[in-house]
Amino acid sequence: MLTQPGEQPEDLSQSVGLVERKYVRLFEGADKLNLECGRSLGPIDVAYETYGQLNEKKDNAILITHALSGDAHVAGRHKKEDRKPGWWDNMVGPGKPFDTSLYFVICSNCLGGCMGTTGPSSLDPQTGRPYGLSFPMITISDMVEVQRALLDYLGIEKLLAVAGGSMGGMQVLDWAIRYPRQVAAAIPIATTSRLSAQGIAFDAVGRNAILTDQQFKEGMYYQTGKYPGAGLAVARMVGHITYLSEEAMHAKFGRRLQRSEDYQYEFSNEFSVESYLDHQGSSFVDRFDANSYLVVTRALDYFDLGADFDEDLASAFAETNAEFLVISFSSDWHYPPRDSKSLVNAMRANDVDVTYSDITADWGHDSFLVKEVINGKLGFLVRSFLDNLDKELTDAEES
Amino acid sequence: MLTQPGEQPEDLSQSVGLVERKYVRLFEGADKLNLECGRSLGPIDVAYETYGQLNEKKDNAILITHALSGDAHVAGRHKKEDRKPGWWDNMVGPGKPFDTSLYFVICSNCLGGCMGTTGPSSLDPQTGRPYGLSFPMITISDMVEVQRALLDYLGIEKLLAVAGGSMGGMQVLDWAIRYPRQVAAAIPIATTSRLSAQGIAFDAVGRNAILTDQQFKEGMYYQTGKYPGAGLAVARMVGHITYLSEEAMHAKFGRRLQRSEDYQYEFSNEFSVESYLDHQGSSFVDRFDANSYLVVTRALDYFDLGADFDEDLASAFAETNAEFLVISFSSDWHYPPRDSKSLVNAMRANDVDVTYSDITADWGHDSFLVKEVINGKLGFLVRSFLDNLDKELTDAEES
Repeated sequence: MLTQPGEQPEDLSQSVGLVERKYVRLFEGADKLNLECGRSLGPIDVAYETYGQLNEKKDNAILITHALSGDAHVAGRHKKEDRKPGWWDNMVGPGKPFDTSLYFVICSNCLGGCMGTTGPSSLDPQTGRPYGLSFPMITISDMVEVQRALLDYLGIEKLLAVAGGSMGGMQVLDWAIRYPRQVAAAIPIATTSRLSAQGIAFDAVGRNAILTDQQFKEGMYYQTGKYPGAGLAVARMVGHITYLSEEAMHAKFGRRLQRSEDYQYEFSNEFSVESYLDHQGSSFVDRFDANSYLVVTRALDYFDLGADFDEDLASAFAETNAEFLVISFSSDWHYPPRDSKSLVNAMRANDVDVTYSDITADWGHDSFLVKEVINGKLGFLVRSFLDNLDKELTDAEES
Repeated sequence: MLTQPGEQPEDLSQSVGLVERKYVRLFEGADKLNLECGRSLGPIDVAYETYGQLNEKKDNAILITHALSGDAHVAGRHKKEDRKPGWWDNMVGPGKPFDTSLYFVICSNCLGGCMGTTGPSSLDPQTGRPYGLSFPMITISDMVEVQRALLDYLGIEKLLAVAGGSMGGMQVLDWAIRYPRQVAAAIPIATTSRLSAQGIAFDAVGRNAILTDQQFKEGMYYQTGKYPGAGLAVARMVGHITYLSEEAMHAKFGRRLQRSEDYQYEFSNEFSVESYLDHQGSSFVDRFDANSYLVVTRALDYFDLGADFDEDLASAFAETNAEFLVISFSSDWHYPPRDSKSLVNAMRANDVDVTYSDITADWGHDSFLVKEVINGKLGFLVRSFLDNLDKELTDAEES
């Protein structure tokens, strides 16, 4: 996420305040999750957070799905002294676009992740050691299955909405297609029906850096006291280039030098953009598990909505009942607007109710995390869409 | 370079045939090269090749400058059984755009390289060991200085033309600006007046992968029997993504799987595009020195034509006498057409004689290496430009 210059002090009246990460164990005993790859997995611990109150009818629940490096901590703070709130705090809170005075907002860490939900760093009950590379390969649909089980546990039969950006958007699409009767509205943001060759290529570079790191030890680095941090940092650096637009990088860094007016003729962090990437890489290493990075990026690669429908994307939406708000960003070259337009065309071919906006924003793929975009058109669109949806649902009930 | 399906057998009548790599030692004794970084270097061995005959007036010489991973071997074969000819064989030969029946074509391996010219893998005469990271940091201008010394040695006072793509194009620009009286014509292809923040960022990722490879050993891996090949391969993989357009990757690979109709749920080379990158990475490791990669990419980062002219690119061309043919490729997102247009505008502000073409080609940055482009518009433009130049020069002499 880009830090914005001249950021205003937070308006705490719009904050969800102090929040708690909760945990639940699902798929216990014989009730394992059957994964797309053919293997099964259980038990699965799920870390999740909720904001706002579930109403009596249990029809005001909104599921937010996170991107590759996100987690369940969407809004508020775990402790007062936390330097930063959750990753979409500007979007979620009382009076914010996902208004927690109206909606019950849920987010869970994805399957395969490393922020509380079962993933490769979790202990395999069979061996008592971390799964490492023995963790099964997972898909976006597997992530959705775990979310669905969590909603069952919470007693929620139908979502008012499911919303998310990037990998989160893939989950949104998967939800709306595979569980058409459980999703009233869907908000896929900055996403695609399938990763391009270039997208797979960037992921492959990152994974290659991890897999060939000498401290990777075939994924069993947990007990070695060493960590494939160098490889993971390289992966994160590559990722960050794709999350930013060339324009944003130019505006933010240009060719500015980090420590001097003149070239110092050194290899490391001489240009500001190098320092930025270096910081992104090393801070990621402190908080993310390398095996999770492998597994979750592979899930991105495998995502291909049309594949199960003879490559006919329109057919994928034939059974969908959800109303859609599809959003892309003009400068997103990683998941470009044309991918969102293909989705919209496929929806419209089925007379699906869809609103589409390609938001003019210079920050590239990560625009959905940028405060200026959220406080501008993104927040406005989401709020209006949900308001309208609310009204429609009430009207339908009253008539 | 992309291999083209259905490639025709070579027309050997248009080949320069068997060629030899030559070597010369320059900057010997006290006559060291003063580098831009403030250090000096000598002696410098230069590996070069020549094709065609230098005429009596010594005015038919064309210097070709190579890109990051190129070398002096532009055309023909060293041995009959060589599987491939030089890297621009389609451009250089009798009857080809750089017509060796008319011109004396020269190409030398760049300073800092690893294909015969002095670089980090060369022996430091002070220590008797390879330079490694003690090799001085070099710039594009330093490369040009070495080429100029080579031309002196060959008795060539003035170049009919200097031509090259990508990093080669930077050298072309540097030549025309710093030695305006020694260059009659200049052909910068798919290049830029300075690397963008994004370009620096991609280079930084590659260097980071090398520098953090545990076998790198601070650049003194030469005597260890191990090589930082994993890091260098990652660097090359990142590079290759930027050399290809998204369209070309999609057309060439799409989401095709390498070994199967169905997902195998493995991390390595499941998608064809992964196998391609893996091959590019590992074959590069066999032929390129990791320290050279660091040094030469840093030279790319430092290149900034306007920097010495108060950021006013137009001023950079104030003293230029060369006639220019500037070429970009429509799908080149790495050194995009807008960068070439800026160059052209800066030239035109000085009434420099410039022909500009943005060639419609789908292969991205590497289009200048693609046979189809060479046999199409690129070859045509270069041939016509040189023909015309030849005529102009003859006319001027006769009048």
